Amino acid sequence: MFKSRFAGQASVVAATWIVLGFPAFAQADPLPSWNEGAAKTAIVAFVDKVTDHASPDFVQPQDRIATFDNDGTLWTEQPVYTQLLFAFDRIRAMAKDHPEWATQEPYKSAIAGDMKGLEALGEKGLVQIIATTHAGMTTDEFHQIVADWIATAKSPKFDRPYTQLVYQPMLELMDYLRDKDFKTFIVSGGGVDFMRPWSEATYGIPPEQVVGSSGKVTFELDAQGKARLVKQAEVEFVDDGAGKPVGINRFIGHRPILAVGNSDGDLQMLQYVASGDGPHFVAFVHHDDDTREVAYDRTSAIGKLDKGLDAAAAGDWLVVSMKDDWKSVFPPAP
Amino acid sequence: MFKSRFAGQASVVAATWIVLGFPAFAQADPLPSWNEGAAKTAIVAFVDKVTDHASPDFVQPQDRIATFDNDGTLWTEQPVYTQLLFAFDRIRAMAKDHPEWATQEPYKSAIAGDMKGLEALGEKGLVQIIATTHAGMTTDEFHQIVADWIATAKSPKFDRPYTQLVYQPMLELMDYLRDKDFKTFIVSGGGVDFMRPWSEATYGIPPEQVVGSSGKVTFELDAQGKARLVKQAEVEFVDDGAGKPVGINRFIGHRPILAVGNSDGDLQMLQYVASGDGPHFVAFVHHDDDTREVAYDRTSAIGKLDKGLDAAAAGDWLVVSMKDDWKSVFPPAP
Repeated sequence: MFKSRFAGQASVVAATWIVLGFPAFAQADPLPSWNEGAAKTAIVAFVDKVTDHASPDFVQPQDRIATFDNDGTLWTEQPVYTQLLFAFDRIRAMAKDHPEWATQEPYKSAIAGDMKGLEALGEKGLVQIIATTHAGMTTDEFHQIVADWIATAKSPKFDRPYTQLVYQPMLELMDYLRDKDFKTFIVSGGGVDFMRPWSEATYGIPPEQVVGSSGKVTFELDAQGKARLVKQAEVEFVDDGAGKPVGINRFIGHRPILAVGNSDGDLQMLQYVASGDGPHFVAFVHHDDDTREVAYDRTSAIGKLDKGLDAAAAGDWLVVSMKDDWKSVFPPAP
Repeated sequence: MFKSRFAGQASVVAATWIVLGFPAFAQADPLPSWNEGAAKTAIVAFVDKVTDHASPDFVQPQDRIATFDNDGTLWTEQPVYTQLLFAFDRIRAMAKDHPEWATQEPYKSAIAGDMKGLEALGEKGLVQIIATTHAGMTTDEFHQIVADWIATAKSPKFDRPYTQLVYQPMLELMDYLRDKDFKTFIVSGGGVDFMRPWSEATYGIPPEQVVGSSGKVTFELDAQGKARLVKQAEVEFVDDGAGKPVGINRFIGHRPILAVGNSDGDLQMLQYVASGDGPHFVAFVHHDDDTREVAYDRTSAIGKLDKGLDAAAAGDWLVVSMKDDWKSVFPPAP
């Protein structure tokens, strides 16, 4: 098979094949939404060298572990994390049974989608919103609630379902890696139970390859002796910052050779991968495209990328410019 | 392809194929170390019905999750859990730098392999042994220590490496399931960092499909800025009893359709799987073979199976008799 970076020579090679009596074929560019340039070249060069048996940097398939942050790396996190918008919608749905919430904080602000009002309440307000919407039901019930929501909810900013606010170049990158026998994982600060119901359909990543933050869950037998797991309003694990390499060790059990993030919350994951003894590849997605998405970095309240940019410069890590390196940002409208 | 339970008819069918002009073939029995009988028939019948597209019980491949306890289910746990024998060997190796341990408990008993002496010290002694041998190093260092040990250590009772004290019928069962597009996981009360270095070579189960108990791990940057994870002497998660379904939810994120255990510590995992809405299959391995292995159940200090036997009887769960259902217990000597 042809290496994708030789795709430009495809017609010459195809002619040769025809002369030799073989059917003409050429492997399509696996990263069509990436502009030709340093970022794409670096990605393909890394994948080539770790998958080429003749390369000194060849990596066995079972060690081809790739981890991806979710919010801001695989889908948009602006103007607000999608999981928070889900929580607001849940509060609105639950408010039918709670008329008192119309005047009671933090519910009042959540119902109004009033971020400023919520911020004024401090972290306590957000914690209460998450506890109210993410606990007190079985894991199966929560799965269904999320699945129903993600199937119908739309981003007001982009007027699209959230599952279409994923980054087309990243979908292609993950497909490309899986074609090359990488195993792809999400390692996100977001709630693991929130991501798993749609990760397979959206990203091709099954539930068991999603690592995320989680609340406590308890085992119960109901009156009929049926076993169920009930979500509790208590944080169990925060998969962010230094929690990301810890989560990788806990859930995956070996050090990835490739990781992509977009914020300082991913810095330690990238440091961990970049500290591997063998070949490795780390990158930040840099949100520098205010036309097609949202431009933000060092001073953003959401997805702040400050120390990460410094570390990338010092460590010669790839910084992907959404503006320059991506031909398109979102998938074409269906 | 022929279903394995029709293997007895293979010669007739093969003749038919020859008459029809097709090359003769018959699928080999996937479970050759299982005696013909109710247990083997039940396993094959379940696998057939969930993998046959025409069956009302067909299960999509991505939902074919199978979980297995380790100690006593996949390998022997008698006379003592293998991980504890590893810890004793570590204490002996470390004792060179700790001459004071010759007279100091719990080290003295561990060095002597004196289980009675250790038991007299209570849980505190064991906890100290585990803390001393399983913490204070990086995850990479511990991985190497375990890999080196498992490659050379032998069970004094059976005079075999521990990786050859695995149950041949269970190896075949897991292979058979994987051939049928099941994803196999270990869900063990044992330490996850202890199992992962050898699970792939021994069971065909990669590190990321091993769920187990774990100690706390912290992220550090060394003086050169290299990232590492350091194992701490603090329990983080006990993957036993009710912890097993909790661990399954946390690590795997969906309910298995098949689970096998051998002790009361697996009861809640089996209850969880048996409470699934779709087709499911649960089984206990019953240690009733004192000739080829060790017979124990309701009153054993290790691997006690008491409530589990009652639950199996009440729930019509499969109880696998090692004595009657297994043609051989361990793999043939290499």
